[in-house]
This record gives sequence, C-alpha cells and structure tokens, in this order.
Amino acid sequence: MTRAAVLGAGSWGTAFAKVLADAGTEVTIWARRPEVATALSSEHRNHFYLPDIPLPPLAATHDPAEALAGADLVVLAVPSQSLRANLADWRGFIEPDATLLSLAKGIETGTLLRMSEVIAEVTGAGADRVAVLSGPNLAREIALCQPAATVVACTDTARSVAVQHACATGYFRPYTNTDVIGCEIGGACKNVIALACGIASGMGLGDNTLASIITRGLAEIIRLGVALGAEPATLAGLAGVGDLVATCASPLSRNRTFGRVLGEGGSMAAAQAATHGQVAEGVKSCSSIRALAAKYAVEMPLTDAVHRICHEGLPVPEAVGNLLGRRMKPE
Amino acid sequence: MTRAAVLGAGSWGTAFAKVLADAGTEVTIWARRPEVATALSSEHRNHFYLPDIPLPPLAATHDPAEALAGADLVVLAVPSQSLRANLADWRGFIEPDATLLSLAKGIETGTLLRMSEVIAEVTGAGADRVAVLSGPNLAREIALCQPAATVVACTDTARSVAVQHACATGYFRPYTNTDVIGCEIGGACKNVIALACGIASGMGLGDNTLASIITRGLAEIIRLGVALGAEPATLAGLAGVGDLVATCASPLSRNRTFGRVLGEGGSMAAAQAATHGQVAEGVKSCSSIRALAAKYAVEMPLTDAVHRICHEGLPVPEAVGNLLGRRMKPE
Repeated sequence: MTRAAVLGAGSWGTAFAKVLADAGTEVTIWARRPEVATALSSEHRNHFYLPDIPLPPLAATHDPAEALAGADLVVLAVPSQSLRANLADWRGFIEPDATLLSLAKGIETGTLLRMSEVIAEVTGAGADRVAVLSGPNLAREIALCQPAATVVACTDTARSVAVQHACATGYFRPYTNTDVIGCEIGGACKNVIALACGIASGMGLGDNTLASIITRGLAEIIRLGVALGAEPATLAGLAGVGDLVATCASPLSRNRTFGRVLGEGGSMAAAQAATHGQVAEGVKSCSSIRALAAKYAVEMPLTDAVHRICHEGLPVPEAVGNLLGRRMKPE
Repeated sequence: MTRAAVLGAGSWGTAFAKVLADAGTEVTIWARRPEVATALSSEHRNHFYLPDIPLPPLAATHDPAEALAGADLVVLAVPSQSLRANLADWRGFIEPDATLLSLAKGIETGTLLRMSEVIAEVTGAGADRVAVLSGPNLAREIALCQPAATVVACTDTARSVAVQHACATGYFRPYTNTDVIGCEIGGACKNVIALACGIASGMGLGDNTLASIITRGLAEIIRLGVALGAEPATLAGLAGVGDLVATCASPLSRNRTFGRVLGEGGSMAAAQAATHGQVAEGVKSCSSIRALAAKYAVEMPLTDAVHRICHEGLPVPEAVGNLLGRRMKPE
C-alpha cells in the first residue's frame, strides 16, 4: 500500500496513524476540527486525546477530499453510530479500488448491522474490499509504543496481508484472519462485559469474579458470533479474548468506571457524572446487542442483566442473584 | 454424595472444604501437621494459609485413614509433585468405589503425566472414577464467599453431576464437563503465562501487552491441549481462559511477583528472595510443559521463552525481541 488516509483523530485514530507512519506508510489524518488538524501537522501533537505524547510528522487536514485523494488504504476511525452519516459525506472522494479498514466497534442502532455491513451498504464496496482491525489495543499504550498484537480481518487475504505489512512495527504485531464477523462481534460486545466487570468491582468483588464474568461473557459472545457465522477460534483469539481482557482489565476505562458506580449502589446519573457526563459505550450497545441476540435466539444472560440494570431499573443485587441462581448445567 | 475427605489443608484445600461444608456435604479435612488439624477442628481457623478467615465447623485430622474411612468423595489437594508419594501412602484406605477429585494442577516432572493419570496409575482406579476441578478459583476469595464459577470434569457424567451437587453454594457455581484433559492442561499451563505477565509488568508494560500475552498464551495452551485430545471449547472456558485470567490478573500471585523482579532486571535469586525464598510454580512447570510440547511437536513460544529466561540465562530484552520479531502470520 502506498498511501493511507486515517479518517478520525480521536485517540485510536491518532495512535493508529502513528503506527502506520512508524511502519513506513505515507499517512494523512483527517480531523473534524481544524485546530486538531493544525496541531497534528504543525506540532505533531493531539492535545485533546493523547496529550503529552509526541507523534511522528503526519500530514493532517480537516478536508476529507484532501485526505482521501490517492489513498489506497482508507482507515475509518469515527464512532460507530456516526459512521453511516460520515461515509455518506465521504463516499464521493474514495478511490475506486481502495481498501476500507474499519477501526469502529459497535452494532448500528436500529438496523443492527455490523460496521463492515454499514460500510458496504453506504459505499457500495464489495465485501472483499472491507477489512476490520481489532485486538487488545488501548490507544494510549500503543501511542507509547508498548508491545501489542492485533488482527486484520478481510475475506480477501491479499488485502489483509497488504494491511498487515502497512501497519507492522517493532511494537505492533498484526495477524491476518478471514473471519470479519468474529472480529466485529468481539469488538462490539466487549464493552458490555467490561461494564459488568465494573459493577462487580464496585461491589467489592475480586479477581475470581472478574475472571468468571470475562469467561462467561466470552461464552455468550461466542454463542452470538457462531449464530452469525463467526469462527469460535477468532473469539478465543486477539479480537475476542484479547480485546475483552484488555478492556476489562483496564481500571481506568469508562465502562469500568461507569459500572463501578452502579455496583457501589449509585444511580445512572451518578455513574454518568463520574464519567464526565458521558454515557459509557456499554450502556448504549447492550440494547442493540440484546436485540441482535433475540433476533438469532441466542441466550446472553450477562448482556441481558446489564441492559435490565441500565434501562429497566433492575437493582444490582437482584441481577447478581438472578445470575448465580440459574439452573446448574454443563459448561 | 454422603461424605467427603479433603486431603491437604493448604489454602485451596481448606477453602474447598469450606465450600463443601457450606453446600451441606459432610467433610473431614486431613492436614499433614497435627497443629493445623487441631486449629481447624477446635478454632475453625487455618492460621497458616487463610489467617483471619472464619471457617465453618469442620472435622479435621492428621490421620489419613480416619479422613478416608467411609468417604465416597476423595478430594486430592496436595502439591502436584508430591501427589504420587502421598497417594502411595493413602491408597489402602480409599473406599473401593469412591470418586477421586483432583484439585492439583501440574504435569509430573519426569513422567510428563497429568494428575488424573498419576491418580489412575497409583490407585488403579478406572478413568471414570477420576474427576478434576478447575477454574478461576483464587482460594482466599472463595473463602471470603465471593462469587466464582468452576468446572468439574469427569468422563462419567453421573459422577461429575454428583460432585457438582456436593459443592454448589450461593457463591460457588460448578459447571460439568467431560473433558478431563482440557481442564488439566489449562490448569497446568497457566502459571507459566502468569510468570510471563509478571515479566511484562516488571518492564513497565500495560494492559495491551498483558492481554496479548494472555491471548497468545491461550493459543499455545489450546495447541498443546488439542494435540493431547482436549476440546478447544474447554480451554475457551472457565478452566482455560477463566483460570488463566484470574491467575494473570492477580497482582499478588507468586508467579506475577517472581516474573516482575525478572522484568525489572533482577536475577533469579532476587526473584526468589521477593517470593519469600520460594520458587514460583511457573519456574518449575515451564520445563515439563516444554518437554510435553516437544514430545507432541507443538510450538509454545511463550513457554519456551520463560524456560530459556529461567533455566538458560536468556536476558529478558532478548526474549521479548525474539517474540516480537517472529515471522508475520495468520492468527
């Protein structure tokens, strides 16, 4: 790949642009706000999302047409629920055979589509042109060049290998995979389980409970993934277990913090106040994941419990009692 | 099941005896040291391994014949490398049709046998009488009645269901499984990966690296398990992912502490001093697991790196460079 456009200058878009640049790929990053683009190109800093971390020289712009011109790799790094609207604005500028790489993690509210499906639908690109990247990739640690592994998934292996080479560095190790569905389901579901881990830690529970929630969370993610056509091995890998463990282990993540307040007996409003007025991603995504599970008749007791706590007022102790009081069964 | 004998009064044997008692099962616990047995039966305390935690009334003895008389469930809770010698002393007292439940986790040095194989070999019991229990079960948290799940595996489902009912409580949730091999491989291999996580944390690396090590560690554990006849799903479950995450997440575990000193640049002697003169389990088991992997031609790069660091003097930075510099490949 000769030129990449990274669309979105949040913490992960910015860190991934750095990875591409460090791997020797020519990169232009698009930022919605002109001042972010200016600081990126002139100071090599992102003061809003990765303050204090020096970045390599990057071309930056707030003009999507400029970012996309001549780009054979288009990296989509905007929030999942705004991807459709952004793509509608950008599609006229995307090169005809460019690879479209999604960093967005989520299930679209209402349509219940995965991000790669949204991309194919809005741009008209064939599935073989759409790739996803997912793994244990907390942006700040990657920006600090700490070692991490990731998965690049595409039905067209030649494209995933090209992306792999475009972003491989001494600290960032990409593996290829053909299972796009598995990678996306892992990334979409993890925040709900991280919220459940936060609730448990707020109740004063320890590492056994955390590990049990992660494992049973993984079991329900695998059930959903398999119903949608994913490979179980993908979800036992970096985009499943890996991303889930990194998100659930990080005590500073917004989902953990939000859940912790609920576990301590606080209200939804108190939890939102603790996360600087923002609603944690897991609060939003638990409902669309639950709807998707219902559509495919998949049992997801942890996701269901998080939904009922966040949106139906179920008291936390009652939710825990329901989960532990379920009928004994094989694993 | 009407009566259980728990052989071994370390932290896990003691906590599991409490679980059985809380589940309504009649229990006698055997302790090697008479003073531990006395404190357990008269004060309901284990001052050596679970100080400050109140236990339910338990019958305790340092006479194995007394513990085993009439027991239809025999719980083996001694260290893996001394199980064979202990069983040789005890076998004459074991009731003919008793279920033998292993809590020991490891691969026997020299023979490279799993614990259930050692049990069958020494006692002459058929494989259908030997069960194993494994999961995210840090003893101290279980003793504090914090919620956790576990797996009881036996080729004879009637026996695993009987054990499940003998140990199910409001805080301890056992699932049954027929995959004895998978449960044992998960439990034996996790300490080596926890040691690798400790090394990474000693180098100042964060949650992405931790999650990547856990995930790639799981991948090599699954490869070994499958070569030995295990189901991948078992290793994606509580006895694999669950136990691995609990062990690797717990910053106070001996393997984490030992590895952390090595990661900070300390010597093996310094690491041993930091763990109160004891060698971490992962240091011992990495060699037998590596030998087992070699016997079945399974690639285990993380286990191999830990072995080379601990037993061949490979410097930590060189080991990390080797791992990250491996040929790029599919997941």
